[in-house]
Amino acid sequence: MDNFTYCTPTKYVFGRDAELKAGEEAKASGMSRVLVVYGHSSARKSGVLDRVIISLQRSGIAVTELGGIDPNPTDPKVREGIGICRREKLDGIVAVGGGSAIDTAKAIAAGALYDGDFWDFWAGKKIIDKALPVGCVLTIPAAGSEGSGNSVITLVDGMHKISLRTDYWLRPKWSLLNPELTYSLPPYQTASGIADMMAHIFERYFTTTPDVEVTDRVSEGILRSIIEEAPKVMAKPDDYQARANIMWAGTLAHNGICGTGRREDWTSHAMEHEISAVYGVTHGAGLAVILPAWMTFMARNSPAKIAQFGRRVFGVNSRHDTTAALEAVMSLKAFFSSLGLPVTFADLGIARPDIELLVKKLHENKGDEIGGYYRLTAMETTEIYRLAL
Amino acid sequence: MDNFTYCTPTKYVFGRDAELKAGEEAKASGMSRVLVVYGHSSARKSGVLDRVIISLQRSGIAVTELGGIDPNPTDPKVREGIGICRREKLDGIVAVGGGSAIDTAKAIAAGALYDGDFWDFWAGKKIIDKALPVGCVLTIPAAGSEGSGNSVITLVDGMHKISLRTDYWLRPKWSLLNPELTYSLPPYQTASGIADMMAHIFERYFTTTPDVEVTDRVSEGILRSIIEEAPKVMAKPDDYQARANIMWAGTLAHNGICGTGRREDWTSHAMEHEISAVYGVTHGAGLAVILPAWMTFMARNSPAKIAQFGRRVFGVNSRHDTTAALEAVMSLKAFFSSLGLPVTFADLGIARPDIELLVKKLHENKGDEIGGYYRLTAMETTEIYRLAL
Repeated sequence: MDNFTYCTPTKYVFGRDAELKAGEEAKASGMSRVLVVYGHSSARKSGVLDRVIISLQRSGIAVTELGGIDPNPTDPKVREGIGICRREKLDGIVAVGGGSAIDTAKAIAAGALYDGDFWDFWAGKKIIDKALPVGCVLTIPAAGSEGSGNSVITLVDGMHKISLRTDYWLRPKWSLLNPELTYSLPPYQTASGIADMMAHIFERYFTTTPDVEVTDRVSEGILRSIIEEAPKVMAKPDDYQARANIMWAGTLAHNGICGTGRREDWTSHAMEHEISAVYGVTHGAGLAVILPAWMTFMARNSPAKIAQFGRRVFGVNSRHDTTAALEAVMSLKAFFSSLGLPVTFADLGIARPDIELLVKKLHENKGDEIGGYYRLTAMETTEIYRLAL
Repeated sequence: MDNFTYCTPTKYVFGRDAELKAGEEAKASGMSRVLVVYGHSSARKSGVLDRVIISLQRSGIAVTELGGIDPNPTDPKVREGIGICRREKLDGIVAVGGGSAIDTAKAIAAGALYDGDFWDFWAGKKIIDKALPVGCVLTIPAAGSEGSGNSVITLVDGMHKISLRTDYWLRPKWSLLNPELTYSLPPYQTASGIADMMAHIFERYFTTTPDVEVTDRVSEGILRSIIEEAPKVMAKPDDYQARANIMWAGTLAHNGICGTGRREDWTSHAMEHEISAVYGVTHGAGLAVILPAWMTFMARNSPAKIAQFGRRVFGVNSRHDTTAALEAVMSLKAFFSSLGLPVTFADLGIARPDIELLVKKLHENKGDEIGGYYRLTAMETTEIYRLAL
């Protein structure tokens, strides 16, 4: 186990009607004039946006709205939000939605208190040392942003998609998690979210750090619960209990608990980001394609931890590591397929991906060698993209 | 899954030399004049106390000491600490030790800012709404107080041992966890600590709340890692990696993550507290006696969750719930025995316990019926104590 520092101060309020606590929690965290950040019509149509705004206003909190946040959120909306916060002297941000709304809210929160351009933080030129408080009302369990210190923003100029991780400043003060708000998600989005949360665990679980038994067992436990609950939410979208388990699993998958004491990997995310950037696919669906390909490569080149995953999570029996690892990949592919997710480029509708371009952009963005579990050269990432054909 | 609120703001700094961060963390949490609370000679002899004090002083923090905290800490030391804090206008408490030192520090932190008597909080007459910040340097992994909002204090007048749980105010601001500091623990104390942390999970795991798959799997994962690592620390007390895993497991066992979304039990703790009070045994050792007895009763009367524990944690195969549950008890007893822990009153050196007295005190303190998993009358708690003979 490696040395680590871990702090998750976010207050989670979980359960039916959780969004009605927005006013109370905003007030308790010192907010009096807030920017409510959300996506498109679904938050309005479902009524959740109105319920949140009414709750805030009933607690005497002034509300300004910033809607229209797209998936894979970009810098113009962040700049717009920062401008509003400064002009109207707002003192808090409340996100209603999934990762895009929450990540945008976090970037606005950091940028509003910084004299320079907020992108300085994402570009690694400055380190965040203050931010407005952020609260969340989660409607899409996937990105885990409701409990993480991360924010992924794309700079339109050059289409640089950058994930910034902070230990503290970008963690929400509070997150309201009502599983009922996820009933209306389209099946493909539910399934993609499940692949995304599993990936957040895999990226931490596949590590070269030895002796991480506690963190391994916690990670395997959350993976097993996702695998158990996922078919239930697909079969019955308004199964409260299954939705609740999936929602809480998505938060724990990314709030850092699965990463304590070890080096992480994050290759699959980096490889998927290039697919999303070039072909505009849903992040979780892209991950469902890349993860098995990455694991297949590892089964051949560094199988021990993949085999452990197969044995402990899918009950694979083979005693030979490579065989067990390949069986784990088969099980994972079958699981993703059962949720209606793609597991190859062809399934994604990309018959002939430009692998040369993907590899070129990947290593331009991430360096000549990438990965924490196994250092991959361009020749090797090419092989992994090909394994996804 | 039940609705829940969960917030663990404690910052954990984990690894070798973690205690040297005391000054930095104290300063960051706004402390300038602190009370350092500790037990007896071991903290001084091992050098950890001096290292902490020097670290604090190097950060410009004034230090006052309060040593001599006993196991099962009592109100006089709390009152002494409160007096010092008020007189010397201290603004923070740093505990160096295990649960006794940390629980005392928390009680002082709450009492120092309260005009009345601190026991009002423990007696349930008042609710804590402010407290001085508390930091911890953990040397005994067992009680989990370094990550919990709990504090157990005994009022000498009447020997009332009361555990107060708060959602927020009694949680430490920071906890420094260096596994090396636990190398010198006597084997019996190491083993008792392991029983204590397992009990903290059991008390949450054995629940009547259905559909808690995520929390169940996380709990089972931590239990499995403890069962895997415990023999290593017993065989080789300076096995850094095993000590590290046990230490982190002890924190996660009691910081609330294993309780999210469900009703808890806490009968075994209540029954053990009476044994400790009457016979002065080590808390964890008493738990190693009571837990199997309680589980044996449940195997006969409400076996389903005990059987699940046996199957998922000890790999018990029986498909019949009562049989599987009884096999789980056998496995747990064998495990405790392998650590050198007692599993019967006789093993504890109590040949003929006064069960009538224990039951009488138990129900006086806790009411006619106790327990969250199964409501137990005096006749039934009598039976459980007898099962521990």
